[in-house]
Amino acid sequence: MLLNADRLSRLMASAGLQAVIATTAENVTYSSGFWALTQWVRRGPQTYVFWPAPELGEPAIITGTSMLDLVADQKPWVSRVRRYGAFVIEQDEMAELDAIDRHQAELYALPDEKTALAALCNAIREGGFGAARIGVEELGLTPGYMAALREAFPAAQFLPADTIFRQCRAVKTEAEIARLRRSAAVAEQSIASALDIAREGATERDLALAFHERTVREGGFPVLGCIGFGRRSAMTNVQPSDRPLRRGDIIRFDVGGRYDHYRSDIARIAVLGEPSVKAAAYHRALHAGVRHAYEILKPGLAARDLFDAVVETVRREGLPHYRRTHVGHGIGMDGYDAPDLGPSSNEIIEEGMVLCVETPYYELGAWGLQVEDMVVVRADGVESLMQTDGSMVLL
Amino acid sequence: MLLNADRLSRLMASAGLQAVIATTAENVTYSSGFWALTQWVRRGPQTYVFWPAPELGEPAIITGTSMLDLVADQKPWVSRVRRYGAFVIEQDEMAELDAIDRHQAELYALPDEKTALAALCNAIREGGFGAARIGVEELGLTPGYMAALREAFPAAQFLPADTIFRQCRAVKTEAEIARLRRSAAVAEQSIASALDIAREGATERDLALAFHERTVREGGFPVLGCIGFGRRSAMTNVQPSDRPLRRGDIIRFDVGGRYDHYRSDIARIAVLGEPSVKAAAYHRALHAGVRHAYEILKPGLAARDLFDAVVETVRREGLPHYRRTHVGHGIGMDGYDAPDLGPSSNEIIEEGMVLCVETPYYELGAWGLQVEDMVVVRADGVESLMQTDGSMVLL
Repeated sequence: MLLNADRLSRLMASAGLQAVIATTAENVTYSSGFWALTQWVRRGPQTYVFWPAPELGEPAIITGTSMLDLVADQKPWVSRVRRYGAFVIEQDEMAELDAIDRHQAELYALPDEKTALAALCNAIREGGFGAARIGVEELGLTPGYMAALREAFPAAQFLPADTIFRQCRAVKTEAEIARLRRSAAVAEQSIASALDIAREGATERDLALAFHERTVREGGFPVLGCIGFGRRSAMTNVQPSDRPLRRGDIIRFDVGGRYDHYRSDIARIAVLGEPSVKAAAYHRALHAGVRHAYEILKPGLAARDLFDAVVETVRREGLPHYRRTHVGHGIGMDGYDAPDLGPSSNEIIEEGMVLCVETPYYELGAWGLQVEDMVVVRADGVESLMQTDGSMVLL
Repeated sequence: MLLNADRLSRLMASAGLQAVIATTAENVTYSSGFWALTQWVRRGPQTYVFWPAPELGEPAIITGTSMLDLVADQKPWVSRVRRYGAFVIEQDEMAELDAIDRHQAELYALPDEKTALAALCNAIREGGFGAARIGVEELGLTPGYMAALREAFPAAQFLPADTIFRQCRAVKTEAEIARLRRSAAVAEQSIASALDIAREGATERDLALAFHERTVREGGFPVLGCIGFGRRSAMTNVQPSDRPLRRGDIIRFDVGGRYDHYRSDIARIAVLGEPSVKAAAYHRALHAGVRHAYEILKPGLAARDLFDAVVETVRREGLPHYRRTHVGHGIGMDGYDAPDLGPSSNEIIEEGMVLCVETPYYELGAWGLQVEDMVVVRADGVESLMQTDGSMVLL
């Protein structure tokens, strides 16, 4: 199961919530195992998970009738379903249905609750939560629905629950870690495929195509392809252009895809030929910062202490003016999960967190350099999800 | 320019709005030409376009400091920028900056307006809109910001503007049509690549990989890959599995990607060998429905009349029990733009609309069949964006 159910229960209890409602694509999939296509590819379509505290009832998926085939095919661990809206599916009366088709037929036979909001209200009312304290994730909810819920249940309290889901997702289950490991591996393989064609005259776009093609071939989905040559590598979010690769160019990769719904986000630097003395020295310092994180990361460490230690290491190891707003972040179904590894973060590192640890450096007129690794925090330290180390690759 | 500026002005005037604020990724790119990476790959990051009526002021992009490199590289037609938040960029004092880097340096030198909300309030206040009627797209706005705006400007009126942007985007500019044409072509080429490997034993997943790889090779991004064999083709949103292709199987493609930010969404049916008499007859009827749309589509037609005519044609041409909730929708930066081609739509077809016209039919225990074409409404009829027609492909 992707969901860290115990952690969610603890977070709900400490916020005094009897139920929470997931509304974004990420938290619907996270809490139920159900991946609702429309919600993932567009903004607006409404699928929810109504999640009561375990002793108070059964969770339910609330989704549009046109999504029910995916429920039948995916068999999510939340099996109770409410559907809304009209949709036409016929049935071959002569055919014997297989298990998935029978499940589909059962789901289509559920009563049509008409609208997402009506179905959600039914779940609240029929579950006996009409006077409960309920956390609602606001980010995926149709504007105005929060007010409509308050009007429909004046005795209930509806509170924003976005932070609770974010805190819950910060500590990964082993099922999530397995997907993140594979997602990280696909990103590294995709960098290798891009470097395979990195010769004089190849363009940023050529490398990006090779990168994304490999991601697709490994079963992933392209997301992030910041690949810049030379001066363009200093652009934080550089989008691939027709700039050709020239001898001496730095190549900066800040890249990642999605595998089984889980993101990767890693950075590596290559150079065609020999780097300048300055680039090599700065990169060694940035790499030393990430390596230092490997040494000190463990449960109980304050995120801001990690930040200070990493920045201090980079400065001491050869980049004395190094400044940053963060040295990384969590990663999971979202590219920026909790915690935030910044100087004013109040978060504490916990066992099971999966982190991107990074030390980017952007210098206009010169180049950008960056090391970014994905790691898992274990009971006694850290496990890397990387197969390569962050040293500069000389082509 | 992607934006249909005259149409937006007319819609704003008829709603009595002195300014509108775009908040979703789609409408920010649409109204300004600026593609803000974080907003496209995650939910939450805030980039806006503040768009006054032309006679009342200049539009402005409001974005995070870390996005400014993309402004410099993309040169959007909205050139005024407000930035918020800390971000560190160094500069090589020895280097002579090129034009993009100089632009970047100028943007980083803009005052830091601290938060997205503060920057938005500054745009409203300094533009003299403190007592104006302002449309705000709610879908991309951080929950709570609408209330914060109302509190900051008690003399102003803030109204939801999601519908105005949707109506505006319904009629495409030629720049948008060019991108949609290419996006549709990439989807057709990608189906051809998938069919190239459609032999007995190839799996749904194999075809999906071939499909998405071709999309990437053509410079697109994979989005939608509903590819199902045999009975699985009856699943509306079928996600590729390890089901192998067998002789006699229907293959249903309901697929599309993104090219230069513009979506495609098309459907084609193939069969390995000979289709059953029933499948062939039903598919001919569905195809006749789409072909009839080509004959009658023109500016001034009511969307619901199109719906009735298409459904009636399918019934008359061999699928007498045909029922549907819609026979298509607009397409653009979103996969479901206006208009909705449904029985209770109030929308009227206009010149410049780009439509997906579709007649899907799903029969549990049998198969799913579907024809879906992308077309442009022209002054005197319709221009197809397809290179292939929707006939069943026999492999």
